[in-house]
Order: sequence, then C-alpha cells, then structure tokens
Amino acid sequence: MAQNIYDDEGFFDRYAQLPRSRDGLAAAPEWPALQAMLPPLRGLRVLDLGCGYGWFCRWAADEGAAAVVGVDLSERMLARAAEFGVPPGAAYERADLEHLDLGGRSFDVVYSSLTLHYVEDLARLVGTVRGALPAGGSFVFSVEHPVFTAPPNPAFVEGPGGAVWPLAGYAAEGPRVTNWMADGVVKHHRRLDTYVRLLRAAGFALADLVEWTPSAADLATHPDWGDEVHRPAFLLVGATAL
Amino acid sequence: MAQNIYDDEGFFDRYAQLPRSRDGLAAAPEWPALQAMLPPLRGLRVLDLGCGYGWFCRWAADEGAAAVVGVDLSERMLARAAEFGVPPGAAYERADLEHLDLGGRSFDVVYSSLTLHYVEDLARLVGTVRGALPAGGSFVFSVEHPVFTAPPNPAFVEGPGGAVWPLAGYAAEGPRVTNWMADGVVKHHRRLDTYVRLLRAAGFALADLVEWTPSAADLATHPDWGDEVHRPAFLLVGATAL
Repeated sequence: MAQNIYDDEGFFDRYAQLPRSRDGLAAAPEWPALQAMLPPLRGLRVLDLGCGYGWFCRWAADEGAAAVVGVDLSERMLARAAEFGVPPGAAYERADLEHLDLGGRSFDVVYSSLTLHYVEDLARLVGTVRGALPAGGSFVFSVEHPVFTAPPNPAFVEGPGGAVWPLAGYAAEGPRVTNWMADGVVKHHRRLDTYVRLLRAAGFALADLVEWTPSAADLATHPDWGDEVHRPAFLLVGATAL
Repeated sequence: MAQNIYDDEGFFDRYAQLPRSRDGLAAAPEWPALQAMLPPLRGLRVLDLGCGYGWFCRWAADEGAAAVVGVDLSERMLARAAEFGVPPGAAYERADLEHLDLGGRSFDVVYSSLTLHYVEDLARLVGTVRGALPAGGSFVFSVEHPVFTAPPNPAFVEGPGGAVWPLAGYAAEGPRVTNWMADGVVKHHRRLDTYVRLLRAAGFALADLVEWTPSAADLATHPDWGDEVHRPAFLLVGATAL
C-alpha cells in the first residue's frame, strides 16, 4: 500500500491550513492554466485522482458534469469532502492509486492535481487511465515539476547573484524523502521526458504542457513568491487519448 | 544580423578542437537519441539549420537522401564543410536564421543541432520551417536545455551534498551573455514549455522529447562527465507537421 501521509494527524492539521485547502481552486495559482486544458465538462463523466477535500469534484458538478468520481487514499480527506456536501451525480471512493481498479467503468475526463508524484508505479496508473478513456478523452494533471522533485536538498540557497535552486540528481529517478509538513514524506522523482514517454507509451498524445511560474499579477498579490521565478514549481500536462 | 561568433578567429580555433568538431556525429553523445527521432532519409529532401562543418549533411547524403541543403551563418564553417567534400545532391548556403528565406523550396526533414538557442526570433523560424514541410514532415532538433541556459552563472558550484547546478532566472526568457570559448556569446534562454508552445502554434505535433544526460556506458567512457547527471545539458525534440 502507498504511503498515506494525509491520515497522519499532524500532517492533516497542517494541510488544512494551506490556502488551497481552505479556499479551494481559487487559491491554487496554477488552477487557471490547468482549467484551460480541460474541455467543457457539461454532460461528461469525470474522474479525479487524489480528490482531497473535493474542491475540483464540486466544481465539476457545478459545471454540469454528468457524473463525478473522486478517489483518494485518505479517509480523513474523504470525510472532509463529504462534510462539504456531495453534489448530485458525484461520489467519493477510497482507493490506493498504486493498485487502482476502475472495475470497467469509463470516463471522458481524468483529472489529477499534485498527486501523481506520490505514485511509484506511474506506468501502471497511466495505463489504467488510458483504459478508462475513449479515443479523444482527456487526461489533465499537475505534478511537482521535475526540477522541484530532483534535488536531495530542495530549498533555495544564496548564490553570488541571489537565490538559486540547487538542482542536482535530475537523472536519478526514484524516491525522495522530504519533510514537507511531516517527516519522511516520500515523493517519486521523474524526469520531464519520462512523463512524456509514459503518456506516449500508454496511447496518449501530448496536447498541452505548462511549467508554472508566477505571473506579474501573481507577484503583485504575493510579493513573497519572488523566488518562484527561478525554477518552475509545477508541471501541468494535458494529454489526449489516441 | 544575428551574432556570428563562429567567424571570430579565436572562437573558430577553439571550436575546431571540440571532439564533435574533429570527429563528428560519433563524438556527440546525444546523437543516437537524436538520430532515433529521424525517419529513414533515403529519397528524402533534408535541410540542416546551422550545419557547421557539415557532418550531418554528409551523413544524410550517405543515408541516401535525395537532396541535402546545409545552411550556416559562418563563412569559415561553410569553407571547412566544403573542404571535407560536397556529396552529390548536397549544397551549402550562407544564411542568417533570423531572416531565413527558403524561396519556396520544400523539404521532408528539417534538422538542427545546438543552434536554435542562438536564434532570437524563434517563432518566425519555426513558422518558416513549417511552411517548407508537407503534412507528416519531420522537424528534429537539439538545443541547450532550458535549465542549462537559464542561470546567469551557468557553472556547477559545491553544495552541502556535492555539486549542484545553480538554477535561477528560469521564468525570465531572453538573452544570456556567456563566455563559452569567446567573450560575450549571446544565447536566448527559453522555457521548455515555450518550445512546446511555439511548435504547436506553428502547426506541429510533438512526437519525441528527450532530456539528454549521460548513460552508464557514457560515464564509463567519460568519468569526467559525472556532474552531467545533475541537470540535463541538451533538449532533443522531434515534431511532426500537422
């Protein structure tokens, strides 16, 4: 079974304080770029891998999706999602993405926000996603960017000309243990070309690719994000099933 | 007119000592991955942007290409290419890629090795390439990787855990002045997502993407390349005209 940091009480409490946990999609600066990769959801069947509090699932239901399934490993996350109210046509399910079995169900859009870098066997999961989509279906996801996940010491340091991101270990894919809001959080570093290759191997065409860094408007609102221009934090990908 | 460092005498002399200048494609460690993105060239019309000494043009002619055109800004490069002998069906032409005009000619494959990061108006050039290819035609190129071109100080430094690449300035596209083999060499930094976006905007589908880092076999032959695993040096792209 995959690591389930979200059911660690301390982690869960700290996670609950993140702006994107409290305020949902509007507090996620990469959301507009990710949203732009989605087709209009009206009448479509939507799956969210790593649905957390269900912000995206509720938005998808509001957009008129015919069916919305949110999957998460964390019982606490799913309980919180249910507290917000389950929209008509929506359902939450507990599942481990390492062993996801959709039981033959089909979807038109599969979405995932900042979850897939916790999955070790991503090739298997991408194959499962492809098998649940018709040709033309969409797989839209964000992950921590490979230059973000690569370094053994992922924190800005002062260089001669200011802050620099100490990029190292890019070629060495595999687990990275960090202490983000809890000790011993395991992420799986993959190269950017590996994400592209896994998608192609599973039968997807790459439709969109965005490396998120803050815009001028983001920086005006959040001057504390100044260092975020030095390396992309998030990789956003839109893929179309062939 | 674009900067023409290759006609600087000191630069040209130092460039001539690079393994890939002396020994051609076999001395370029990224060549096998780039070659794998090319279709079989027999009977095809091939254009090489930034042909240098003509190593690729001669290889393409050997592979049976019906016609090969090599373009370069540097008179010295083209003179050296001619000294190696111009194969039947091949021709070398002097042109500035900032203002390339192919005069209505068509090609089946456009290739470029480690040249496009010197081009300021890449959107224009990619449009010119697209206009010279039929649907299904191939555009295969390598550039210095965006994490390589981004930093104002592009050299490894010692971090607490060993060598790190001081990534900075990734979001700020534009010129970077470096002193690679000559003072004041100007490269144009672009984000990886910009390369993808420019290709899509011009009417290409992304077919292949490889971030070159040394293999175990490369490292056995070149133990001095050890730090190259910490960040990709080259970005290799294969695109198909839609």
